[in-house]
Formats: sequence, C-alpha cells, structure tokens
Amino acid sequence: MNAMMKALVKTAPQAGFTLSDVPVPTIGPTDVLIRVEKAGVCGTDAHIYGWDVWAQNRVKPPLVIGHEFMGTVTAIGAAVRSIHVGQRVSAEGHIADLTCVLCRTGDAHICERVKIIGVDRDGAFAEYIAMPEYNVWPLDDAIPDEFAAIFDPLGNAVHTVMAAGVSTKSVVITGVGSIGLMAIPVARAAGAASVFAIDVNPAKLELAARLGADATYMATDPNLVDEILRRTNGDGVDVLLEMSGSGAAIDAGLRMVRNGGRAALLGIPSDDVKINLAERIIFKGLTVLGINGRRMFETWYQTQALVKSGRVDLRPIISHVLPYTEFDRAFALMKSGEAVKIVLDFKGDGAR
Amino acid sequence: MNAMMKALVKTAPQAGFTLSDVPVPTIGPTDVLIRVEKAGVCGTDAHIYGWDVWAQNRVKPPLVIGHEFMGTVTAIGAAVRSIHVGQRVSAEGHIADLTCVLCRTGDAHICERVKIIGVDRDGAFAEYIAMPEYNVWPLDDAIPDEFAAIFDPLGNAVHTVMAAGVSTKSVVITGVGSIGLMAIPVARAAGAASVFAIDVNPAKLELAARLGADATYMATDPNLVDEILRRTNGDGVDVLLEMSGSGAAIDAGLRMVRNGGRAALLGIPSDDVKINLAERIIFKGLTVLGINGRRMFETWYQTQALVKSGRVDLRPIISHVLPYTEFDRAFALMKSGEAVKIVLDFKGDGAR
Amino acid sequence: MNAMMKALVKTAPQAGFTLSDVPVPTIGPTDVLIRVEKAGVCGTDAHIYGWDVWAQNRVKPPLVIGHEFMGTVTAIGAAVRSIHVGQRVSAEGHIADLTCVLCRTGDAHICERVKIIGVDRDGAFAEYIAMPEYNVWPLDDAIPDEFAAIFDPLGNAVHTVMAAGVSTKSVVITGVGSIGLMAIPVARAAGAASVFAIDVNPAKLELAARLGADATYMATDPNLVDEILRRTNGDGVDVLLEMSGSGAAIDAGLRMVRNGGRAALLGIPSDDVKINLAERIIFKGLTVLGINGRRMFETWYQTQALVKSGRVDLRPIISHVLPYTEFDRAFALMKSGEAVKIVLDFKGDGAR
Amino acid sequence: MNAMMKALVKTAPQAGFTLSDVPVPTIGPTDVLIRVEKAGVCGTDAHIYGWDVWAQNRVKPPLVIGHEFMGTVTAIGAAVRSIHVGQRVSAEGHIADLTCVLCRTGDAHICERVKIIGVDRDGAFAEYIAMPEYNVWPLDDAIPDEFAAIFDPLGNAVHTVMAAGVSTKSVVITGVGSIGLMAIPVARAAGAASVFAIDVNPAKLELAARLGADATYMATDPNLVDEILRRTNGDGVDVLLEMSGSGAAIDAGLRMVRNGGRAALLGIPSDDVKINLAERIIFKGLTVLGINGRRMFETWYQTQALVKSGRVDLRPIISHVLPYTEFDRAFALMKSGEAVKIVLDFKGDGAR
Repeated sequence: MNAMMKALVKTAPQAGFTLSDVPVPTIGPTDVLIRVEKAGVCGTDAHIYGWDVWAQNRVKPPLVIGHEFMGTVTAIGAAVRSIHVGQRVSAEGHIADLTCVLCRTGDAHICERVKIIGVDRDGAFAEYIAMPEYNVWPLDDAIPDEFAAIFDPLGNAVHTVMAAGVSTKSVVITGVGSIGLMAIPVARAAGAASVFAIDVNPAKLELAARLGADATYMATDPNLVDEILRRTNGDGVDVLLEMSGSGAAIDAGLRMVRNGGRAALLGIPSDDVKINLAERIIFKGLTVLGINGRRMFETWYQTQALVKSGRVDLRPIISHVLPYTEFDRAFALMKSGEAVKIVLDFKGDGAR
Repeated sequence: MNAMMKALVKTAPQAGFTLSDVPVPTIGPTDVLIRVEKAGVCGTDAHIYGWDVWAQNRVKPPLVIGHEFMGTVTAIGAAVRSIHVGQRVSAEGHIADLTCVLCRTGDAHICERVKIIGVDRDGAFAEYIAMPEYNVWPLDDAIPDEFAAIFDPLGNAVHTVMAAGVSTKSVVITGVGSIGLMAIPVARAAGAASVFAIDVNPAKLELAARLGADATYMATDPNLVDEILRRTNGDGVDVLLEMSGSGAAIDAGLRMVRNGGRAALLGIPSDDVKINLAERIIFKGLTVLGINGRRMFETWYQTQALVKSGRVDLRPIISHVLPYTEFDRAFALMKSGEAVKIVLDFKGDGAR
Repeated sequence: MNAMMKALVKTAPQAGFTLSDVPVPTIGPTDVLIRVEKAGVCGTDAHIYGWDVWAQNRVKPPLVIGHEFMGTVTAIGAAVRSIHVGQRVSAEGHIADLTCVLCRTGDAHICERVKIIGVDRDGAFAEYIAMPEYNVWPLDDAIPDEFAAIFDPLGNAVHTVMAAGVSTKSVVITGVGSIGLMAIPVARAAGAASVFAIDVNPAKLELAARLGADATYMATDPNLVDEILRRTNGDGVDVLLEMSGSGAAIDAGLRMVRNGGRAALLGIPSDDVKINLAERIIFKGLTVLGINGRRMFETWYQTQALVKSGRVDLRPIISHVLPYTEFDRAFALMKSGEAVKIVLDFKGDGAR
Repeated sequence: MNAMMKALVKTAPQAGFTLSDVPVPTIGPTDVLIRVEKAGVCGTDAHIYGWDVWAQNRVKPPLVIGHEFMGTVTAIGAAVRSIHVGQRVSAEGHIADLTCVLCRTGDAHICERVKIIGVDRDGAFAEYIAMPEYNVWPLDDAIPDEFAAIFDPLGNAVHTVMAAGVSTKSVVITGVGSIGLMAIPVARAAGAASVFAIDVNPAKLELAARLGADATYMATDPNLVDEILRRTNGDGVDVLLEMSGSGAAIDAGLRMVRNGGRAALLGIPSDDVKINLAERIIFKGLTVLGINGRRMFETWYQTQALVKSGRVDLRPIISHVLPYTEFDRAFALMKSGEAVKIVLDFKGDGAR
C-alpha cells in the first residue's frame, strides 16, 4: 500500500504545519485503516502549531497532527474480528500497551506507556489513519458526524463529570474553554441540580449561560467566592470541575467547595501550584481527583448514551466547520478567541 | 396543654377512620409541636383504613393515622436549638432510637427499633402533631405546600433512584403507582439517559409518558422482556427500579437487567417470592439493593435540591387536594383508581 | 503441529473420563501453547465426570476436561507480544468475546458469550492447552506450583471476599467446601475482624477452625441464627459470604446479616429459591451481590498479592497431589468426602 | 455542683501548663459528667504547652487542656437516655453542631462549627470532664484502659487507613510519629498486603519494623523513590498514607504512588506546599483524600473491632504511663524524642 494522501504535517521544529503528500499508513494484523472525514481541532494542536516549550519537549517531527476524528473503515487487518470495512467509526486516541497492571485492571487510560495519536505517533489530520482495532469506536447512526468528530474532548468532559459524580449536586466549573463548555450540558444531563460557570472571558460566559449554566461569574470578580457561598446557603458547592489549569482558579475553586466535597482536576497547570493543603483540602475532608483522558470504554458508552438520547446538544459549541485546507485560518480563529470549537472537513466541502 | 383538636383516628379494630376530638399532643424537651396544614394520603393509610391482615398485625388502636405532612411550628421544647416557632416544616416520619450502631453510622433509616408515625404512634392526620426536633425538616420558601406535604414518598423515590445510581444509565421502572410515577421525573433529573415504565394500568402508563418516560409497556405484553432488550441493543437495561412488589414483575424485571447491572427493590411483596437465583442474580453478577424509607437526611437534601431547582415537577401526580373532612371520599377515589396522589388540607378549604 | 498428547477426555455422553491420545492443540496468531504441569480438580469436573443433568445439558463430547492449571509456555502465536516461550504461567479459564459492552467496561468475567475451558471448549487435563494471550497469567517465582494450579478457585474466593468488602467487618461463611475454606484465610488476610464458618460437615468445620475461623457452627444447630446474633452484640454480622447454594443456608444466612449489611452469593442453587424478600432484603436495606468467576484481572492481582505476601497459605486445603493417571481415584476421593482439594500432576510423579 | 478538682490549665498566654484547682464542670440536660482516669498526650497538647504561633492564634486562656481520654460516668443530665452512671467510657473530642448539612449527612467530623475539647473548650487533663451524650463512647470490657485512652488518635489512623482502602494493597506511610506508627498494625489488620514506612528518625523506623512494617526507609535516602518502585515491580504503591505534613515527604510520597492510586493526607503542613499538580496528580489519575478527625461513629466501631479482636496491639506504642502530676516530664520526654506515646494517669499511681 504505497498510495499517497494529503496530511497536515509538523515537518520541522518550528511554528506552523505543512499540507503535505505522505504515504497512506500501512496496517498490521490487528489494525484498521480509516478514511478520515471530520476531525476536531484541540488546544493541544494549537500548542504544537505554535511550537511552545511543551511541544518542543514532546513532539518529534516529522509527524501528522490531530487526535479527534471520525471516518469510515476502508481496510482491516487479518486478525480483526469486530470491525468491518464500510463501518462508520471514531476512535480513542490513547494507544495503551494493554499488558500492564493498569491496562489489565480497567485503567488503560492512564497506562504509563500510552502513545497519543497526533502527539507521539501519526495522527488524524490526514485522509487516512491506521488505528488498532481495540481503539476503534463504532458509531451509532443517530450521532451526527460533527459530534462524532469531537467524542474525544467530549469524553474528557464526560469522564470529569462522571468521576466527580454530580447527580442532585451543585457544581462549579472553573474555566469554560471548549471542554468546560461541553461540561455544562453534560453535567446537567448527568443530573446536576445547579451548574455555575466561571471564566475570564465574557463571551464564553454568555455561551455558558446559553448551554444551561444556572449562573455565570467573571473570575476577576473580587467577591466571587462569597457569591458562590451565598448561592449555596453558605455551605459551598458539592463539586468543583477545574478546567482552567490556572493556579488562582484552583485556589478559588477549592475555597468554593463545601467540606466533604469533591474536586476533579482536568486543567493542566503549566507550572507548580502553591496550595494551602491544610485549609483547602485536609481540614475540609475533600476528595481531589486527577483526571486524564477518558475511561476505555466506559466513558465512550456514557458519551454515546448522552448524545444519542438527545440529553446533550453540542451544536452551540461547534462554531466552525472548515475544509482542512483552511487550517491556518482555523488556528488564527482559535488564537483570536473568535472560535469555540472548530471541526475540519477532510472529505467534502466543509458545509454543514 | 389540654386543648382539644380534630384528628382522623383508627378507634377500633375494624375498617374505616373516625373524625374525632382528641387532646393536642404534649411535647418533651427535645420535641416540637406542629400545626399540620397539608398531609399526603399513602397506600399504607389505605391498608389501615381497609384493616387488612398486615394492618391487623401491626396497628394498635386507638391511633391517629398519617405520616406525610407539612405545617407550621407552634411550640418547641426547652432543649430545642435548631427550630423556632413559626417555622414552616415537614418531617421524617421514621423515629429512630439514635443510639444503635445503625443510627450511629448513618443508617438511622433502617434502625431496628424505628417507630413510624401514623403506624406505631400517633400520626399527622390531625390539626397538631408532636415530633422530635431531630426529625423536623425546615422547608425552603421555594417549595410549594403540596409538594412539601409529600416529601416522604418523594423521598422513597429519590432514595431508590440514588441508591441504584442512574446517571447516564438506562432504567426500567416496574410498577408506576404514585411512588413509581414520582421516580420517573426523579430519574430523569438525576441523569438517567432513558426511562422505561411498566404497569398493568394503561392510565398510569399514559401519565408515566406525560411525566417523561421514554417508553411505556403493559406488564401483560407477552414480548415485554424482548422489547426491552431490543430497545437496549440486546444487552438489557443498566438499572431496575422495582416498585410493584409483584413476584412476576420482579422476575421479569431481573430478566431485563443486563449482566453487571443493578436492581433496587422498593415494592413489598405480600408473600415469599420464588427466584431463580442462579440465572437471575448470580451468573449475571447483579447487585440487588433492598430499599427502605429514606436516608436521614441525605435523601431530604437531594429531594430539596431536585424540587427547588425545578428539575422535578410533581403537579401531574397530585390528582386531588381535598378538605380532610372528605377522607372517606379520598379512600374511595384511591380504591377506584381514579386518584393518583391525594393531599388532605387540614387548615384551609382545600382549594389549590 | 500434529504431535499427539495424553488427555482426560469425556468421549461419550456417559459417566467417567477416558485417558486418551489426542492431537496437541494448534494455536492462532494471538494464542500461546502451554505444557500443563499441575491442574486442580473442581466440583464442576466431578459433575461432568458423574454426568449429571447439568452436565448433560451443557457439555458436548468429545471434550478435554479441566479448567484450573499452571504450566510452562512452549510456543506463541505470531502476534503475541507480552508472553514468551519458557514462561511459567497460569490462565483465566473464562474466554470472553472482548468486544461487547461488558468486556469493554471491565466486566469481561460476566461476558454473555463467555466460553469456559474444560466445559465449552477443550480444557487443561492434558499435556498441552492452547490459550489466548489475553487469558494468560505470568506467575511470580515466589508462588508454588500447587498454589498456582488453583488460582482459579482461589480467585472465586478472593472475588467474593473483595466484592463484599470485609475490612474491619464481621463475616459469616455458609458452606465450607474448598472455595468456602479458601475464603477463610482470604477474608482474614483482607482485613476481616471476625470470621464465622457454617457447614453440615464436622470435618470441614474442624479444618475451617485450623484455617483461622474464629468460630464454627453446624448448619443443623437449631439455635444457629441466635448464636450468631449473640456473638455480634445482637446486631448480626456485617457480611455474608454464601458458598453452599442451599436454599436453607441462604435463608439462614440472610437472617444473620445486620440491617444495611452485604451478602455475596457464590454458591449456585440447583433450583428456584423461595425468599421472603420483604423481611430478608427490603426492610433490612441489604445489598446482595451475585458473584460469578473472577474479575479480569483485578482479582488475579489481588490473589497474587495475598499469596506472594504470605498472608494466605493454602497448604491445609490441598489434601492430595496425584499423578493425572489416578484421576478415577481422585473423583472417588472427592465423592467420599475424604479429599478437600486435589491437584493432578501432569508432568512429574505427583510427589509434593 | 461547686466542688473543686485538679486540672492542667493553660492559665496565661505563655509556655507551660499550671496544675490548678478549678470547679468541677456543670452539666446540661443532654450532657454526662465523666471521672477521667487515663488521658493520652498528643502533639497538639505539646504545641499548646510550647505556645507556638498556631496555639497563640487558636487557644484562649484560661483553658483546661487534653482531648484523648477514658474514665467512668459519675452523673448524667435529665434527658440522657443511652448512658448510665458507672459506665466506663471514652469520647469523641470533636463537638459538632449536629444541625448543619454536614452533621445531617454523616459528615459531623468535618462540621464547620466544630469545637474541640482541650482546644476550643475545657478538656480532659482534669479529674472531671463534661461531655454531650452524643459524643460519649461506651467501652467494651475487653479493651484495656491505656488503649481506650488513645482511641482518639488511633481513630485518626483507622479513619485514614479505611478512607484510603488498603485491602490487598501495597501501602507507604510517610511519617511514623505516634499516629503513623499506629497506622502500621491498623493497615495490616485492615488487609494491606505490604506496608512500607518512611521517616527521618531511625528509632521510629525500628519500632515501625517491630509493629509489622515489611520494610522501612530513611526519608533522607537519595534513592528512596526508586527503592519503593523496585519493591513494587516498577509500578509504585497502591496507597500513600501521608502522616508527616512535610512538603518534601508529600512530593516524594506522590511520586511513589502508582497511576490510579490513592493518597490520604493526614499530616498538616505548617505552610503552603508547592505541588506539580500535572505530573503528581492529574496525569496519574490519582485520588487524593483530605483526612480530618474520625468519622462519627463509623471509625469508632472499626477501631473497637480491630482492638477487641486482637488484630491491633498498641502496647509497643505506649512508651510511658505517668501520674498526671508529672506533666512537665511528659512534655520533656516528647520533646527529646524519647517518648512515643505517653498516657497520663488521673486516678491511680500510673503503674501499668
């Protein structure tokens, strides 16, 4: 299989991607080949595009970028049993070793030897991608292409919400970037009794309200913690979903949670964070959960149930669907803050 | 305090209640006196009214009946600290001993020495009732009187739903009497992705659909189990909420649950039930939960959160609000199946 | 690979096994071939040997029997990555489909399409067995061969104990056959504060005491339930581990558990069981767990930790190690009750 | 009741305690009066004795010190129902408000308005102490006085161990002061498969080994983290019990825990701690638990079960039993590191 395909490639250790012709990937006996149709653009892609310090330390060019996608299976390996050619699929982008204690006890999503597509091996911003059968997720007919293309970040939101446990609870979300925004309808659908959203960006907060947040607050509000306490009978919220990675937001968020509450941390701080462990966590009897990726495949089933039942609608979050050739424009839109979530079209004309 | 009050009393070991003048109850140092305003009529009250075998074995006349209510505090004992005169309240009707291992470890709702008001001691179908401070539940202003009057059975529904855990799950409810009906909006608000209701009564199923059930089925449908399997991709539902107490429904319900699923049993069979433990529970790796009462007071906080947030609306379930003097009519309406949930008015004229 | 090997085969639909020469199994790309060294004899094997009704309905001759074993890997398929030739291994005998919702969410042990070696496909009472790489369990050097050979039933005991949760709890075990006996040191090592054993066989109870039971009781004792209540301050035990499958034991066991307690059911009743659901489960607020197999591979890691640390010693339970050619004697010893657990030696001379 | 009694009193805002004559406390209707017999000396008492910054900010002289004790009931209030004069008791020293959401949902131990005896109100280093009936813990005859006197700190250890969940797990304890030492036999009895202890004090590590630690390590060992990884197959331990409050120990401890593991934090850092949240908690998918006090009264029942069954023996930890008049010597022994746990005798001659 030495046919060629179009792909967005980090060709050299510098900013930007190159639209290149590269060989269609070959597949082993337990892999499938997928014709990519739509792919989501993630903040991680923007880090690699911009070539920041994290990207410089992690990414080894040349590499095809992209890890959120859906498409159609065009070939399967000899030992593949559960997937067939022509099937419409998405896929889990974390490729675990499947042999360690974590993988063997239901924690493959935090396997220490995980490889992420588009970061550690070739990714999905291409006409074709090879994936292990294990990672492929057959799509229900009821799920639209654009939603399917972003099941990966939606899965981050679902995993965070479900790990925290929100049924009948009050919830604060600190940081409503695209995953934080997704967490709003997810938390409501999963049973939250109230959802409060906090951010530094008024436009994101407006969208948060449209997505079902019961109240929204500017992170810069000097009375923010008191306001949340006032809204919760002086007790604080039951659950914090931290999706900003900001040290200040983490501190404020922990102050808003009631004694005995739960805090799920998804946002990744770029540096060490100073925490008053005694006052914020120990005396409060808090439970703090580190959240990474999505559970394979419990989170995928939960995500499917939420989307298929119509309880979660992602349309307000997908701000743009663009032909993949307009990738430079996509990253410019992200940088300017104009875009919320961008989906690239690798097959048609990008019209929705 | 030797004033007299009106009360519905089981005066003798025979069918019916008597509208009587009895002394207003006296209160001890840790009790409060409550002017009852509205009270819910429960199936248990109907059993006592009809004087069936269970009632004959359990109830010792003379006894004031009724255990679901709300009202206003008119007096407090010398040691009462958290409740004040004039406060609008409901109350937990299970009076636990508070000294046994169950009460001391968060399981007071299943205390072995529990006394239930209106069953084991004087109840709420009266102008006044005395309650221990511990059992009193201060009402949020946002909660209407009629809803507050039935927090007890609503709490049964909430406890069952929350013990089972429905967030993102598919749910079958077998038996949609008044608690089963309440469980529909509760399960949806608590995060269920789909809710299927089963009963023998088409009118109840119609109401179930109106309350948010995604599908409803006659229990007599010979293809019932297959239908549920078809709706759940052949796997069966994640969760069974058994609210009928019927042996046939329990067997059918257990067949509908997927391997590894959860079944919460609230309905009380009147006799032993024959169960194929190997096929229905053991090989399936099922978790079966016996549900009794409501957790003190976790369930009450959850119930308050659901009602106050507007996620649960009980109006379609409260079919009648009647002056308490029309109690004979109330029990006739229940017997005929015309009524869903009846609330008695002990203060005003019963107009809503 | 058309070499021949010795195997114990159910050749025809009648009682007994035949020591036969059959072809060494062939392996696919994801399988490994294992030279069996030691294998445990299970009650299930005795059912198939005796050809009872269950066996007649389930087993299709000709079939190699046996599902508990250890040995050494002699060949691996082309796609096998984590296992190498010469490795000392045991294996999980439940072969799941690995593609259904249960397998994809950590519940492969209750996969609906599971095939069990020695029951549904050729088993381990042979010189060689082929197993999927997924099912193979590499053995720690510190674990003796005889213990490794019975990790499967030990895993049943561990899964039951860990599902119930015994840390600091009081525990009753009803039925101390070989798995019930194993459950005694497992429960103690897993943190049980007290363990009570019940059976109809005084010799088994004597062994139970030797294995660490704090007290033992004849199931026929008319004051049995009262005795257990007396030992537990009148409350009942925290946990029931039901390992007899007897309807009478299940009823008695449920009566011994305290309100809010947990009951794990592993014993398989041969018929429907009549249960007073109201008194035994619902009013008590009990949690009842159906237990099947062992979790893949959480239970295996737990089992390894318990044996490797020396917290669990199986020597008193392994009553006989016999050459596999003496299989008829083994089943006679089991039938007579002389044997507790028998291990067959497929390589050496059966000396321990 | 204007009789006088001996007590150790912080009479003024300066170092030291004064052996004073003060009035025997009066009791309200829901209180009991207890003749103190033995009382444990805690690090908190040493902070107050030494009058450090924390003590200056929290303690308002004059105050009777001490919060770990046992004794005999000599009087009960009019409304007391479950305790009688002559009963041998210990007591929970955290006096919660019992009316807030935390107290009403099983989290009284982290009530925001808790008052601690010997810190916020008069304590147990006295001949008599008044306690609310709710807080009193009747003692089982099988529990020796010295053990009963330190059920409070033992409860800290038990709560930490049980919150983390150690059954079949590998456990690291960072910091083996008296509570860290207690956690060793508690973790073993609760089911830990292996326990590793770390400290800066070789004498404490020697005692740790005597109490059942499988291995001990100096915190100053530069290869410490690698050593623990080597002992755990390269994965890291399942559970961290942090009992030092040291920032360096917290960082090292979090590095030792495997992905998906659990860390329970009991030690109280005196200052903010810088944490690499991304690497230590988020990417690892860790669960971090803040631990405060002991659960009322689940932890007390667990503690009783462990001690009464003989699974936990505290004798190696109680280094001194001294007459209460020798309190200055007790604090000198603590400061010098000669003492592990000191019990003061308020009744007899201090002989064991």
